[in-house]
Amino acid sequence: MKGIKIVTIGGGSSYTPELVEGLIQYYDELPVRELWLVDIPEGKEKLEIVGNLAKRMVKKAGVPMNIHLTLDRRAALEDADFVTTQIRVGQLDARIIDESIPLKYGMIGQETNGAGGLFKGLRTIPIILEITKDMAELCPKAWLINFTNPAGMLTEAVLRYGKIKKVIGLCNVPIGMEMTIANMLEVDSSRIHVEFAGLNHMVFGTHVYLDGMEVTAQVLDLLGSGKVSMTMKNIIGLDWDRDFLKALKIIPCPYHRYYYKHKEMLEHELEELKKTGTRGAAVKQIEKELFEVYKDPDLAVKPSQLENRGGAYYSYAACRLIRSIYNDKRDIQPVNVRNNGAIIGLPEGAAVEVSCMITKDGPKPLAVGELPVAVRGLVQQIKSFEQLAVEAAVTGDYHLALLAMTIHPLVTSDVIGKKILNEMLEAHKKYLPQFFR
Amino acid sequence: MKGIKIVTIGGGSSYTPELVEGLIQYYDELPVRELWLVDIPEGKEKLEIVGNLAKRMVKKAGVPMNIHLTLDRRAALEDADFVTTQIRVGQLDARIIDESIPLKYGMIGQETNGAGGLFKGLRTIPIILEITKDMAELCPKAWLINFTNPAGMLTEAVLRYGKIKKVIGLCNVPIGMEMTIANMLEVDSSRIHVEFAGLNHMVFGTHVYLDGMEVTAQVLDLLGSGKVSMTMKNIIGLDWDRDFLKALKIIPCPYHRYYYKHKEMLEHELEELKKTGTRGAAVKQIEKELFEVYKDPDLAVKPSQLENRGGAYYSYAACRLIRSIYNDKRDIQPVNVRNNGAIIGLPEGAAVEVSCMITKDGPKPLAVGELPVAVRGLVQQIKSFEQLAVEAAVTGDYHLALLAMTIHPLVTSDVIGKKILNEMLEAHKKYLPQFFR
Amino acid sequence: MKGIKIVTIGGGSSYTPELVEGLIQYYDELPVRELWLVDIPEGKEKLEIVGNLAKRMVKKAGVPMNIHLTLDRRAALEDADFVTTQIRVGQLDARIIDESIPLKYGMIGQETNGAGGLFKGLRTIPIILEITKDMAELCPKAWLINFTNPAGMLTEAVLRYGKIKKVIGLCNVPIGMEMTIANMLEVDSSRIHVEFAGLNHMVFGTHVYLDGMEVTAQVLDLLGSGKVSMTMKNIIGLDWDRDFLKALKIIPCPYHRYYYKHKEMLEHELEELKKTGTRGAAVKQIEKELFEVYKDPDLAVKPSQLENRGGAYYSYAACRLIRSIYNDKRDIQPVNVRNNGAIIGLPEGAAVEVSCMITKDGPKPLAVGELPVAVRGLVQQIKSFEQLAVEAAVTGDYHLALLAMTIHPLVTSDVIGKKILNEMLEAHKKYLPQFFR
Amino acid sequence: MKGIKIVTIGGGSSYTPELVEGLIQYYDELPVRELWLVDIPEGKEKLEIVGNLAKRMVKKAGVPMNIHLTLDRRAALEDADFVTTQIRVGQLDARIIDESIPLKYGMIGQETNGAGGLFKGLRTIPIILEITKDMAELCPKAWLINFTNPAGMLTEAVLRYGKIKKVIGLCNVPIGMEMTIANMLEVDSSRIHVEFAGLNHMVFGTHVYLDGMEVTAQVLDLLGSGKVSMTMKNIIGLDWDRDFLKALKIIPCPYHRYYYKHKEMLEHELEELKKTGTRGAAVKQIEKELFEVYKDPDLAVKPSQLENRGGAYYSYAACRLIRSIYNDKRDIQPVNVRNNGAIIGLPEGAAVEVSCMITKDGPKPLAVGELPVAVRGLVQQIKSFEQLAVEAAVTGDYHLALLAMTIHPLVTSDVIGKKILNEMLEAHKKYLPQFFR
Ligand SMILES: [Mn+2]
Ligand SMILES: [Mn+2]
Ligand SMILES: [Mn+2]
Ligand SMILES: [Mn+2]
Repeated sequence: MKGIKIVTIGGGSSYTPELVEGLIQYYDELPVRELWLVDIPEGKEKLEIVGNLAKRMVKKAGVPMNIHLTLDRRAALEDADFVTTQIRVGQLDARIIDESIPLKYGMIGQETNGAGGLFKGLRTIPIILEITKDMAELCPKAWLINFTNPAGMLTEAVLRYGKIKKVIGLCNVPIGMEMTIANMLEVDSSRIHVEFAGLNHMVFGTHVYLDGMEVTAQVLDLLGSGKVSMTMKNIIGLDWDRDFLKALKIIPCPYHRYYYKHKEMLEHELEELKKTGTRGAAVKQIEKELFEVYKDPDLAVKPSQLENRGGAYYSYAACRLIRSIYNDKRDIQPVNVRNNGAIIGLPEGAAVEVSCMITKDGPKPLAVGELPVAVRGLVQQIKSFEQLAVEAAVTGDYHLALLAMTIHPLVTSDVIGKKILNEMLEAHKKYLPQFFR
Repeated sequence: MKGIKIVTIGGGSSYTPELVEGLIQYYDELPVRELWLVDIPEGKEKLEIVGNLAKRMVKKAGVPMNIHLTLDRRAALEDADFVTTQIRVGQLDARIIDESIPLKYGMIGQETNGAGGLFKGLRTIPIILEITKDMAELCPKAWLINFTNPAGMLTEAVLRYGKIKKVIGLCNVPIGMEMTIANMLEVDSSRIHVEFAGLNHMVFGTHVYLDGMEVTAQVLDLLGSGKVSMTMKNIIGLDWDRDFLKALKIIPCPYHRYYYKHKEMLEHELEELKKTGTRGAAVKQIEKELFEVYKDPDLAVKPSQLENRGGAYYSYAACRLIRSIYNDKRDIQPVNVRNNGAIIGLPEGAAVEVSCMITKDGPKPLAVGELPVAVRGLVQQIKSFEQLAVEAAVTGDYHLALLAMTIHPLVTSDVIGKKILNEMLEAHKKYLPQFFR
Repeated sequence: MKGIKIVTIGGGSSYTPELVEGLIQYYDELPVRELWLVDIPEGKEKLEIVGNLAKRMVKKAGVPMNIHLTLDRRAALEDADFVTTQIRVGQLDARIIDESIPLKYGMIGQETNGAGGLFKGLRTIPIILEITKDMAELCPKAWLINFTNPAGMLTEAVLRYGKIKKVIGLCNVPIGMEMTIANMLEVDSSRIHVEFAGLNHMVFGTHVYLDGMEVTAQVLDLLGSGKVSMTMKNIIGLDWDRDFLKALKIIPCPYHRYYYKHKEMLEHELEELKKTGTRGAAVKQIEKELFEVYKDPDLAVKPSQLENRGGAYYSYAACRLIRSIYNDKRDIQPVNVRNNGAIIGLPEGAAVEVSCMITKDGPKPLAVGELPVAVRGLVQQIKSFEQLAVEAAVTGDYHLALLAMTIHPLVTSDVIGKKILNEMLEAHKKYLPQFFR
Repeated sequence: MKGIKIVTIGGGSSYTPELVEGLIQYYDELPVRELWLVDIPEGKEKLEIVGNLAKRMVKKAGVPMNIHLTLDRRAALEDADFVTTQIRVGQLDARIIDESIPLKYGMIGQETNGAGGLFKGLRTIPIILEITKDMAELCPKAWLINFTNPAGMLTEAVLRYGKIKKVIGLCNVPIGMEMTIANMLEVDSSRIHVEFAGLNHMVFGTHVYLDGMEVTAQVLDLLGSGKVSMTMKNIIGLDWDRDFLKALKIIPCPYHRYYYKHKEMLEHELEELKKTGTRGAAVKQIEKELFEVYKDPDLAVKPSQLENRGGAYYSYAACRLIRSIYNDKRDIQPVNVRNNGAIIGLPEGAAVEVSCMITKDGPKPLAVGELPVAVRGLVQQIKSFEQLAVEAAVTGDYHLALLAMTIHPLVTSDVIGKKILNEMLEAHKKYLPQFFR
């Protein structure tokens, strides 16, 4: 028997031990015989550190999983069953730029939203499309499971311009919401079922069920009580107004704070910048320390310090997704896929984040119908932004990039938007050859 | 513990032993403590015969399920958990009229399609809407699971005009297709997964998977080979043209023969009428014999003769549906529900027959997207027919009934359609008070 | 001043004197300085006969319009302002085949509907697409005004596959309906305004206004009275059922008889075939006689005999369309154009026949909204047929042609549809090279 | 002959002389015999001043138009042909509140957008719906032509909840854009044709034609040149970024500055507030002076000072609309009507501002198709806001009002939005009984 071959592009990431831990735990249902960790020459050192830790972990766990480390992506891809991507074009220094320049002009500076998210997309989309070219040639039957941000934009790009169509965008936001809800209700998460609908980092929990009975209103009330908080490592947990949640009737995701608390989030970011610098800089420090820990030749498990990094449940989300595809489980998981009419009003071919039945033939979205009238416009606007950003990334068209920038709700001026665009294009020039031909 | 209470309206039906057999088999997962069989005074004798058989079956099986027989529907409905309906307004004599009059005018005479289906709908919709009134009052949390034909039209009527919204239309056609496909491929049906989309008796298998891998083309080829047949007891199994199936790319249901083999089906019906009379008359004879068998006080299982009656897999379909709701199973089953955008192009509020995830909160349709261009129009036309028929049934408006009749693809003349309408209105006058006010 | 240059492809048609008469009458608003009549070598004789008549007409009228006769299409097209097409691939002999073969198998045999319309489309679409290639090169700013049948299918083909996008399909059916309605109401047609919506030869008058006040119900009542008839030269004027029209609430076009009186129309065609042969054969005889008349060197006006040929109002329709484009009139005319959302539920890019504002920038459809529920399915089915037929014509794919054939409502059997397809492919082989590669 | 009867509700408005001037100019095509100016008791003095001026104007012009002044709305409405509404619930003091409170919390304070527009809608919708009740009873055939702001929201309210359906919302923004464009291009406005699509105060010029040839790109370039400005009296004419306009490809309306220059507009408003107070206060002063002028018994024409008030072209827009309806002109004008599918993606029943053919049967929108991807989301979001605001106005539901407030793009915080809501509800309590039951 051949066994499963997984290729992880950006394998030198600090998250890799998470993934390896998950693959070990799921081994019975998901017999991975080969895990190829691929990285670029600049990441060689990290790849070796993290790769050696992975080897120690596997050995200690006693599972027959072979870990391969390589800088040769094409060699790795051959006959892969699953390809996961967790790349960061321009590394954390690029992120720091994405966060700093918009803030300098008084606009939100954030990794995956607004001007910052736009540039992360512009840098990353060409690379992900190249990966799909290789896959079409070397492993045409494999699934591409993309963890890289901005995951919605990247899924959209692959659906529209990729050489393969078997792509799934994966984010830990929905699973984190499910877990928080279970905690709030003080029940095991297996008793909770949340219906998700929206876009990546713009997803809503539209209905929550406890043992099959709807408890959405109760969850909204708890969430508005100020006693619990649902957030991510990288987003400050500002409280929601209880009446607003009651009026909204659906559960916003942590990132919705950028939209419904735009003013406060901007003020907070400006303060933080003064006090402690960007999130990117903080992460850079965390990563540095993490890799020191990883180097320890006696370490053969995922170290607890990884939790500070964020990314909770990523490993769980990834492993249960791959497992359900591999075993044709037909269970329900929230992922980023082709809309296919699931959300009325969004293009049939657009990437959306919705609850899907996971089968060997891929995720099949459940029909959402119309989104609630209150959120329809915002969701469409972000989708429009993503569509224009993808077009801009593929064509290198300056005006398309300007349009994407300006229509984003977190960029509140055409004139300033253009200044930000110009300065960021210059700052990221090295990673944006399509704009400088 | 209270246990589940099921109420079966039309409990004196010859199909009831099927249902009872199923409930016995599923008892572990579906602990039914009370089964109320309800019928109308005209059906009292049959109710007693079949009810006593049911009691003997339960006793022999040793399950603690109480069978109640009653003519008092409202008494039965109180606090029910599930209400199933299998009624036949006007009994088989009305069906014989539905089949005969259209044929006299050279048009298809069929129980659930065309002029016959229209009149079955006109007679039955007011009754089903009355049942929903009682349910709203007496068991507002119960699910209405409707087996009565025309199931699509009835589900549409309840969705639009019913006093309750928890309704599911159930038909054995999709499950029969799944079983036939499993037989064709010579595999156990559990390894087969078929995606269904369309309307009741106008449903297509859009994708077939074997162990998660698509095998649709292979199934179409087998189906066009003339070696196997996929049909129902009441539909002659005329062979499909292999090239047509290859061109269609999706799997038609047995009833599609009325549309894609209209000419042959009409010729066949006219011949049969001459040779052996209507299907209704044949069924009447089968039923008569069946009830003789049922009377046997030594009989305590479903007799094998029931198979001649048709309705294969009804019991299985019903029990697995109720079980999955009761247990919040979240498995996939094809049922008739509110579209909710699952099929693009059909109204969001229309009843459609699609693969759904079955939860305690009811069925959640999987997104189908656009139907293939080749079938879009036909499906819309039948849905238009159903919408107009529902309006006509509710209002008693002659012109709406005439419009429904004339636009049906199986009625190929406005002038003759009107003659059929007039003669059928007169023939069914007793059951159509709304048209004679 | 340059003056307008019109090129008429298929200029040797018997209809040409109609067009010339119109151009003479409209000369003040539409100063045509050059009219190029183009035909193929097989049509050289007719071209000369009709061309010489045209020259005599122009001379007698005293307008400075130059008539050019040529077999060199590319020479003619250079710098044209408007190109009209009235071609007949395979001439009337092909039409006779289109009408005969389906009838032999008991199906409607008609020039533009059903199996016959399908084959007329398959033969003509490649030619019209070639014309658009020449236009893109030689007169890219010109409008293509297509009179050739099946006009809906051809417009669809050009919109999807043409090298130019400035195309309008023109039919005399809507204008004929308007004129008949004016006659019925005994008022001048200028006081009547009809809103049209649907497809070519499947168009409905959705609202009729007299002096701006709605009179649709009155018109329907008159039309169902049996005292007046609205039809075309080539369609028998079978009466509509008055109650059906009242129920329908919108005004069907003459061709709708093939759908709502399918049975009677088929019986009538079979009878006629026996009695007098096909319509194509009759037209052939009429044309022969017409050309004899045209030869008369003393004839310098459109002869009255042309009226037997059909095509009433074509000249009027064509001239007022070209005039309104040329003069940016912004008046309302029913033409075949890109849907652009005018009819909800049909593809945004599909060809539809709707009331449009006619501007120098082309026709701008008025928003229709949803078609009435009663006709939605039939219209979608014909559109589906057209879409598949266009695909088949462009690709030469046998299975697509079979699918188009079988889903057409006038072809009521998959098995017989295939026989008709096979026999017609063989009969028209010469004109269908794309199917015989 | 009866002659036309027009009723103007809010007849004591300072704009009335505009309207009267227009009616005098258009008298030949629009023979108004009775003009009823209606107002409420609080407006009696103004009504008399302006009414007497109107009488002097009519007398001087020598047209036989009778001016009636009344406080009895129902008496006035009887048998009216057209009803125009130009009311201001709470007068200018309410406007000052609408502008001040949001600004106090750092949010845009504007008459028709954001929090201010919301409250203007909440106050006015109940009154406009009462007017439709009277109309349904007293002049059911009349057209309601609403000039009152927020005109989009009010049209939406009447379409959804009004007792009459013959409603048109009218704004001078599109006509002002057309005039500015004509000025820019230095041509007479009759040679210009602009296609409009969007919502009231959120409308775009999607295509501009000069003599029928598209010149949109040229217009955008001029508009971005900084040499010309397209704005309204009440909106500062901040320059558009030339590249942004080039990227957008369609022409924004003056109000779009609040969205695409949100930051600058907010800063400007805050500055202005400090320097000169609200726009409402300024208008109050202008009005005071105007009415002094109106009192002059020697004045018998519209005084030139009215121009400072804003509202340019209102009279022209109103008169040409009424004239085209009355005369069934079938010309093209941009108005607010039921979408009817004209803009794909917005609800079929929603109010939209689009180019329409104006007929005796009302405006018929031209099909727009999909809005450009860049603006789809913003337009949908404002439509969502309007829909929720209408629901809130009709129900008096606090949570709906909070939801409308919070989702508006100009309100950038749930917590602050709630504070604004609470303070404004209290401030306008007298005019919002539905929220205090
Ligand atoms: Mn994420
Ligand atoms: Mn069935
Ligand atoms: Mn025609
Ligand atoms: Mn306005």
